[in-house]
Amino acid sequence: MTRFAAATALRRVDDAQYAVELHPGWSIGGKPNGGYLLAVLAKAGCETVEAEHPLAVSAHYLRAPEIGPATVVTEPVRRGRRVSTVRATLWQSDRACIETLISAGSLSGGDGDALWNDSPPPQLPHPDNCAAGQPPGFHVDLLDQLDLRLDPATSPFPTPNGTPRLQGWLRFEDDGRLDPLALLVAVDAAPPTVFHLKRYGWAPTVELTALLRGIPEPGWLRFAVRTTRAAGGWFDEDATVWDSADRVVAQARQLALVGRRP
Amino acid sequence: MTRFAAATALRRVDDAQYAVELHPGWSIGGKPNGGYLLAVLAKAGCETVEAEHPLAVSAHYLRAPEIGPATVVTEPVRRGRRVSTVRATLWQSDRACIETLISAGSLSGGDGDALWNDSPPPQLPHPDNCAAGQPPGFHVDLLDQLDLRLDPATSPFPTPNGTPRLQGWLRFEDDGRLDPLALLVAVDAAPPTVFHLKRYGWAPTVELTALLRGIPEPGWLRFAVRTTRAAGGWFDEDATVWDSADRVVAQARQLALVGRRP
Repeated sequence: MTRFAAATALRRVDDAQYAVELHPGWSIGGKPNGGYLLAVLAKAGCETVEAEHPLAVSAHYLRAPEIGPATVVTEPVRRGRRVSTVRATLWQSDRACIETLISAGSLSGGDGDALWNDSPPPQLPHPDNCAAGQPPGFHVDLLDQLDLRLDPATSPFPTPNGTPRLQGWLRFEDDGRLDPLALLVAVDAAPPTVFHLKRYGWAPTVELTALLRGIPEPGWLRFAVRTTRAAGGWFDEDATVWDSADRVVAQARQLALVGRRP
Repeated sequence: MTRFAAATALRRVDDAQYAVELHPGWSIGGKPNGGYLLAVLAKAGCETVEAEHPLAVSAHYLRAPEIGPATVVTEPVRRGRRVSTVRATLWQSDRACIETLISAGSLSGGDGDALWNDSPPPQLPHPDNCAAGQPPGFHVDLLDQLDLRLDPATSPFPTPNGTPRLQGWLRFEDDGRLDPLALLVAVDAAPPTVFHLKRYGWAPTVELTALLRGIPEPGWLRFAVRTTRAAGGWFDEDATVWDSADRVVAQARQLALVGRRP
């Protein structure tokens, strides 16, 4: 069993409830990572409606849960031949922490049937010539679980460059046959783009919607994250993930609050 | 009262229920437009949690409602100082048609506080030199309510160009003081991008998430819609809307099913 499978393992309590142990390894600054939580919720949702993969996952973050035991409560909304929809809520200590709506079905592999694909992966230096995702002077536990390498031209460490964009490589332990659920971690694993604007505070996500677009081919993933607008205390982050066959396998956009000035 | 205000008027039944009359004018092919329905749901959600504006609206479409009476059932999830979250579901004839999660708060106007803004509006011919959005030989009722002009270089009418991108101008009746809710219509008012790939069938949206980013300045809106990937029967549409001050005021992405071949 991979570490990702272990960290997202669910114990079915009943038709509508799953117990989960939020794992300290998939956290940042002591808080479980938002993408990891998304994977836990999507897994419970897919089990509830007996669907193979999440297709679209919309999450509204209410409060950050702690590491440790939590419960996912699910409620099927519609079962369809091609798409089923389910609500899933993460509860901890009698408080709802994350609300999600999930549309689930079956992703396809390969790309023989593509009508259109206009998003080539970013040009990146070889992974050996990229920078570790770990910021200096601060240990991100999440980055012990996955191998994240930042294109040095876009790394905010040690010096932010004023442009809120990041790109790089990403690999999980089981990259030979990656669980598509792990793509939900991939869309939210990079440092906040606003680090480049010297906003280093915690940047809480308010809403994140991820679309999974295909079963990834084995090997390194590539990602690019960019912010279109940061104003009035809010910023967006748009993340795209490509597999080793240059295919877009995940897209996500989030709305988050800009961290306080240091 | 503007036509948009009339078409989205809610009658409060109780704390958690609003009656609405889905208006024939805001439809395409006899079905209420997805963006119009989003505006109705977001309005009910904001009223429920006493918030001024929707900030992020995630909608999962279960089945297309008909023109006529419908009910929005809301449920507050969290009330916060800066953001409140609420569920809203559109019901018709005892069937749930659309499930949403809405994070709501207050949008700001102007742009004095922008940290970053890297998305300039598209260069477009003057509105007088743009094409009407109405397709030939088919009347879109929605386009009687708003003035949509397509950049001729990106119009799929009369001849698709093979590139699933559209851009143009958009104006509502009350463009002097546009209700920010109308931006939810703006993100889903253009013809499907896949018309350019000769997929003219009905392209049902499965999931659409819209972020509202600011109160629009008076005047024409501009929009750009593009598809990153169409494969396996699915496509995404990413829409950006700018106000007359060149500011991004709405962003949306949807996952939809490709219409059948004609």
